[in-house]
Amino acid sequence: MVETSRTPRRDSYTVDTLLAVTVQVFNERGYDGTSMEDLSRAAGISKSSIYHHVKGKEELLRLAVGRALDGLFGILDEPGATTGTALARLQHVVHRTTEVLLAELPYVTLLLRVRGNTAAEQWALQCRREFDHRVAALVAEAVTEGSLRADVEPRLATRLLFGMINSLVEWYRPDGDGSDGDRSAARVVDAVSELAFHGLRAAG
Amino acid sequence: MVETSRTPRRDSYTVDTLLAVTVQVFNERGYDGTSMEDLSRAAGISKSSIYHHVKGKEELLRLAVGRALDGLFGILDEPGATTGTALARLQHVVHRTTEVLLAELPYVTLLLRVRGNTAAEQWALQCRREFDHRVAALVAEAVTEGSLRADVEPRLATRLLFGMINSLVEWYRPDGDGSDGDRSAARVVDAVSELAFHGLRAAG
Repeated sequence: MVETSRTPRRDSYTVDTLLAVTVQVFNERGYDGTSMEDLSRAAGISKSSIYHHVKGKEELLRLAVGRALDGLFGILDEPGATTGTALARLQHVVHRTTEVLLAELPYVTLLLRVRGNTAAEQWALQCRREFDHRVAALVAEAVTEGSLRADVEPRLATRLLFGMINSLVEWYRPDGDGSDGDRSAARVVDAVSELAFHGLRAAG
Repeated sequence: MVETSRTPRRDSYTVDTLLAVTVQVFNERGYDGTSMEDLSRAAGISKSSIYHHVKGKEELLRLAVGRALDGLFGILDEPGATTGTALARLQHVVHRTTEVLLAELPYVTLLLRVRGNTAAEQWALQCRREFDHRVAALVAEAVTEGSLRADVEPRLATRLLFGMINSLVEWYRPDGDGSDGDRSAARVVDAVSELAFHGLRAAG
């Protein structure tokens, strides 16, 4: 037992721990700029050990981006997103999208940085557009309902809304210890919701 | 005369036209990933012709980013940004920053994408932070004045505000002809100002 803990075995790597390393390298070097060699070096395991878990770089991208997409699309099925007024559903989606973005920060960062022409990248871009369209439809519904202003076109409003939310991947860094991190995340989530729906102006 | 117009001379390139090509290549390939060879090919002139105008890649970055910075810092000296309530000054700055971003789209895009460790890149990042700090100070002043909500910390509000504005470089593309482009830019500028200060909710 002592021997085992002193010398971690190669197969102590799971797909999840491999993904955690992979997503970091993809975010630093870009998906294009990352080789299996880079991943092997960063993970501290051989390429053949990586191939034991996945078919290659493209599958790693699909798994990492898939984790972000599962989180985001999962929101749209939550009761808060399926029942109530369009405004209440949109508020739920904005709040939860920001929460998921902060909770899955490296994975959503990768999703938002994907560019390019491989099949896996095109698929990620397509899924991202699909999510944006679902939210834009909700914005349009809330405008029709009369609870959102009608003078900003829903598609434009949605783009600016996601501009604000997605900018978090550029600067948000969780604090060192868990409790502070949680407080700070909650503070950011509240600020996004308040600014999105009510803007900077003081009430009254 | 006819001969001259049929055979453009190398020195018909000015620093401005060279910059227009350069900024496009930097935005496509990244500053790091661009060689003088790439620039020479994209501009259709020899490397020595480029060296006739500038010392090298780093000077091109400084000039291109400088154009964006001149536009942005110029706003802070405009009468609308120096007189009136803090709220009125901030509204002017938000409106004009969005206008300048759209008018100088490729140059501001480059400024916002700069990462890295060369002196020119560090200088660009430093200038960008300085601009953000100046706006954050104005936000703080407007909070003190009572015209902006006090429940969102000024630095956080400023980051989210710029998140929304800066996201334009990711998706805004001017329409084909000038007049349409102008109408569409004006519409986007108005939408940013409205959402920033009043949010998505319908009034009342």
